[in-house]
Amino acid sequence: MKKTSQLKHLIHSENLDFLMEAHNGLSAKIVEETGFKGIWASGLSISAAMGVRDNNEASWTQVLDVLEFMSDATSIPILLDGDTGFGNFNNARRLVKKLEQRQIAGVCIEDKQFPKTNSFLDTKAQPLADIDEFCGKIKAMKDTQTDKDFMVVARVESFIAGWGLEEALRRAEAYRQAGADAILIHSKRSDIVEIESFMKEWGGRLPVVIVPTKYYTTPSSRFQEMGVNLVIWANHNLRASIDAMKKISDQIFREESLVQAEGRIATIEEVFRLQRVDELQEAERKYLPSVKMDSSESL
Amino acid sequence: MKKTSQLKHLIHSENLDFLMEAHNGLSAKIVEETGFKGIWASGLSISAAMGVRDNNEASWTQVLDVLEFMSDATSIPILLDGDTGFGNFNNARRLVKKLEQRQIAGVCIEDKQFPKTNSFLDTKAQPLADIDEFCGKIKAMKDTQTDKDFMVVARVESFIAGWGLEEALRRAEAYRQAGADAILIHSKRSDIVEIESFMKEWGGRLPVVIVPTKYYTTPSSRFQEMGVNLVIWANHNLRASIDAMKKISDQIFREESLVQAEGRIATIEEVFRLQRVDELQEAERKYLPSVKMDSSESL
Amino acid sequence: MKKTSQLKHLIHSENLDFLMEAHNGLSAKIVEETGFKGIWASGLSISAAMGVRDNNEASWTQVLDVLEFMSDATSIPILLDGDTGFGNFNNARRLVKKLEQRQIAGVCIEDKQFPKTNSFLDTKAQPLADIDEFCGKIKAMKDTQTDKDFMVVARVESFIAGWGLEEALRRAEAYRQAGADAILIHSKRSDIVEIESFMKEWGGRLPVVIVPTKYYTTPSSRFQEMGVNLVIWANHNLRASIDAMKKISDQIFREESLVQAEGRIATIEEVFRLQRVDELQEAERKYLPSVKMDSSESL
Amino acid sequence: MKKTSQLKHLIHSENLDFLMEAHNGLSAKIVEETGFKGIWASGLSISAAMGVRDNNEASWTQVLDVLEFMSDATSIPILLDGDTGFGNFNNARRLVKKLEQRQIAGVCIEDKQFPKTNSFLDTKAQPLADIDEFCGKIKAMKDTQTDKDFMVVARVESFIAGWGLEEALRRAEAYRQAGADAILIHSKRSDIVEIESFMKEWGGRLPVVIVPTKYYTTPSSRFQEMGVNLVIWANHNLRASIDAMKKISDQIFREESLVQAEGRIATIEEVFRLQRVDELQEAERKYLPSVKMDSSESL
Repeated sequence: MKKTSQLKHLIHSENLDFLMEAHNGLSAKIVEETGFKGIWASGLSISAAMGVRDNNEASWTQVLDVLEFMSDATSIPILLDGDTGFGNFNNARRLVKKLEQRQIAGVCIEDKQFPKTNSFLDTKAQPLADIDEFCGKIKAMKDTQTDKDFMVVARVESFIAGWGLEEALRRAEAYRQAGADAILIHSKRSDIVEIESFMKEWGGRLPVVIVPTKYYTTPSSRFQEMGVNLVIWANHNLRASIDAMKKISDQIFREESLVQAEGRIATIEEVFRLQRVDELQEAERKYLPSVKMDSSESL
Repeated sequence: MKKTSQLKHLIHSENLDFLMEAHNGLSAKIVEETGFKGIWASGLSISAAMGVRDNNEASWTQVLDVLEFMSDATSIPILLDGDTGFGNFNNARRLVKKLEQRQIAGVCIEDKQFPKTNSFLDTKAQPLADIDEFCGKIKAMKDTQTDKDFMVVARVESFIAGWGLEEALRRAEAYRQAGADAILIHSKRSDIVEIESFMKEWGGRLPVVIVPTKYYTTPSSRFQEMGVNLVIWANHNLRASIDAMKKISDQIFREESLVQAEGRIATIEEVFRLQRVDELQEAERKYLPSVKMDSSESL
Repeated sequence: MKKTSQLKHLIHSENLDFLMEAHNGLSAKIVEETGFKGIWASGLSISAAMGVRDNNEASWTQVLDVLEFMSDATSIPILLDGDTGFGNFNNARRLVKKLEQRQIAGVCIEDKQFPKTNSFLDTKAQPLADIDEFCGKIKAMKDTQTDKDFMVVARVESFIAGWGLEEALRRAEAYRQAGADAILIHSKRSDIVEIESFMKEWGGRLPVVIVPTKYYTTPSSRFQEMGVNLVIWANHNLRASIDAMKKISDQIFREESLVQAEGRIATIEEVFRLQRVDELQEAERKYLPSVKMDSSESL
Repeated sequence: MKKTSQLKHLIHSENLDFLMEAHNGLSAKIVEETGFKGIWASGLSISAAMGVRDNNEASWTQVLDVLEFMSDATSIPILLDGDTGFGNFNNARRLVKKLEQRQIAGVCIEDKQFPKTNSFLDTKAQPLADIDEFCGKIKAMKDTQTDKDFMVVARVESFIAGWGLEEALRRAEAYRQAGADAILIHSKRSDIVEIESFMKEWGGRLPVVIVPTKYYTTPSSRFQEMGVNLVIWANHNLRASIDAMKKISDQIFREESLVQAEGRIATIEEVFRLQRVDELQEAERKYLPSVKMDSSESL
């Protein structure tokens, strides 16, 4: 099944599904090998991995280059955290074209303004997009896609920006009418009061996606009961890698030795396996002149 | 001190110093924060993080883009694992120019042929470069640099390719005469027989760099005694991150919950700290109109 | 018709067809508007436009970025001048994958060594590739393509490198057996002695492509008689633009005025037309909120 | 003299100087060879050459890549047409850092909103930036530069957007106080009424730059009298190349022959000269093993 159709299926199926965050080709492959059915290409994680901030410091084509490596390394669908679409409707529809070329299955855009600010930063303004402008953006994206199953998810930031349920519903409904394939309703509360109120009033007009980074203590069974379709574990591979790298760097720095470190981390052979070195070795046998290989074996 | 001068100092100082591997802006920053005085931009790690193989599958400018993020995120010197220089002397000297623009402190090139093969893959040919051709490459690189402290390290792959001490010494001496600033002598044995024999005969004609990935059980004090100047811990941040991401992905996949995961990984606030969110918030106070900030505070 | 199928048709049709050189999105669009059925993405022109040499100074992904703009701006097929495939069989098959993602219809690879040298530079060595190695490269490329109509053209550089007809035929036949879709037979003579001798002996075993930059005085009817399938006008847009820019720069520099220049060059409106500004203006009417447009009309 | 200092000198000198447009490495080199003392890296030309629109369709890093080729190919200063700075103050100050790394001498930013619209398109809104926001952007850019001679030119779009002299002066003065090094006052009238009124009231508080694309019939001596410091010929190389490519493509298409075309365009040797092929040939003699060169000479 095409990646777009796989993602569409995940979003529309009745039972709860999960996307796991990845931020480069390597983490994307790990997500697939683990068994997840889809990948969340997190804007926060991709920017943090690069060493820049989640404020559109990296250009949208630099993000695209990362996505291309992620897509090439995997066969499950990738949903891109597309910020605001990186500008107006014209930038957003260009993005769709570029994502389709790279077999990215869908993109989530949020109703904020460019350059964006991470939703969990609370000391700064989070001005929302004009509703009509955002609806035009959604329409332009949907009109641009050539693969009918490409997914455009509209992320409602009303709760994040301090507005109430009414505004969230008004926006979600407008985005639905503009052609969005699903609504991502976001909240930074540590409980599910906002999400629950939204789900109750929304009544399944479109599939709903959530990101429970802050209200993670809620069991997934509760999300299923509320009618959520897709849960995104949004940044945990990045955060696990940070922790691990800090520890190993610290250990090796202090000990000036690898002895204790070696047993605790993936082997070199595991790195080679993840890179699919075996496929290349097989291809070399197939495509490189045999004489050359003979000479190599004599070394 | 300029990054180039810092690296030169590390290479020339009598006491043993250490470079720790990084493969993106984030890991580079972690290496610096840990206390290391320099960074090894590993070809294996950078390619593996992208999800491709260590066989020049990523283009040299894609590697350069990663290096730029790494350099921007840190203030300690970066030594690039520059494979074969990505082609002939002309490609290698172009590389030097591009590295200097990005404040990369030095580059290590190895005497193999393009496209390269990772030194630890033993089922494939590892043809060495022609000595004269490689010396011409070193000369071209040294003639190109505009910062006199930029470091060109010549990596001798004789042991890797199955040749003996004599060939290693012959090449190291030729590279020294061609203008190399240091010799990286590489070995994939699990003991230091090859390295030890080289150090003894070499007699400190130029500083020596080693990569004890395979002979890691040797204590660093032994390297110091042998007269080694610089030790590279070549891929351990990458390998630690792989291990950590596999574990966290697996746990979250099985538990369909973040509850157990949350305590085990870096916090979101730690991600923000590494991205230097505080600097941006301060800059916003300085450069954004105050009216806008007032309205945000009312939300 | 898909771009790949269009190119396949051009190559296989009995009557003589022509590809015109382009080196960026703009020149590609001009080639299409002129009426040509296909575009030659010249390595010489693309590198010269960048300001670098035709010796793989630009990385293969930098070339790819140019191709993406060219492909996006046009609907006729593009045949890439793919040098040597930018490395060994593995680099070449990666290239095929990347070209397909960007809707490039085919690639021509030449049997020289990386980094390449322009065929018209005669004071330098033009070492040919090992035949078996080059055949393995062709096989790997053909095995990689997912669109059956993607074209791999094998460029025979025997005449360029000083070898005779026998070597040219031997190589062309080997490349045909390896799976090449067409042979590009190259010559830098100012007459067609070499080309004619090849065509006679080749006997139509595969379609033949030629680049008559040096033997341009031969009329195209002669090429048709000889059985050539496709002629490439290889660098003339670039050369026309150089001449024009030198003249206009010189005139404006001397006159310190645009008065004489204005009438001699394309209008600003023509630039806008080539950029398809009208499509954006229509899209703005469709996707931007009407209120915003009203306020604009009042200015 | 450093490129930044060269540009500073051009901007501050009493006598009128001229920048000529370029859009890639090749045109930049032609501008330098013609005798111009500086280059205008036009946003319109660069986007048009790529085949996209002047509405931030290309990402800012794609523009940066073009600039790097332009800077590498020349030794005279480049002033970048930096649109709005590609976002807010944070994007703009990142841009400054990236430009300095690539030896770009300065950047001109305009007081419009992202994504920008070309100033000569009159059917669309041209909303101006908030003055305080734009002043903050200028301050941030000036605080970021590490080379004291890097130039930040503030482009006042008041006349373009339909406002009068008062608004233009108010903005120019605010930008001056914010730290701008020069004012670019823009007008799309075919006479100099707006420019003249501005110059009179401005009274030389800062150097002034103009772009007489629309009021080109005014002689440069008049600009000098008015006290203008720098004139930009903004898009004429691009427009000359369009005209030339359309003509040569059309001719070759109709004639199916190069015979008439060959004499009218730059020679292949001229292409090689512009690429500095001679430098590489000399370098090959210096850095490539002599044996290899001997074998080549025998071909």
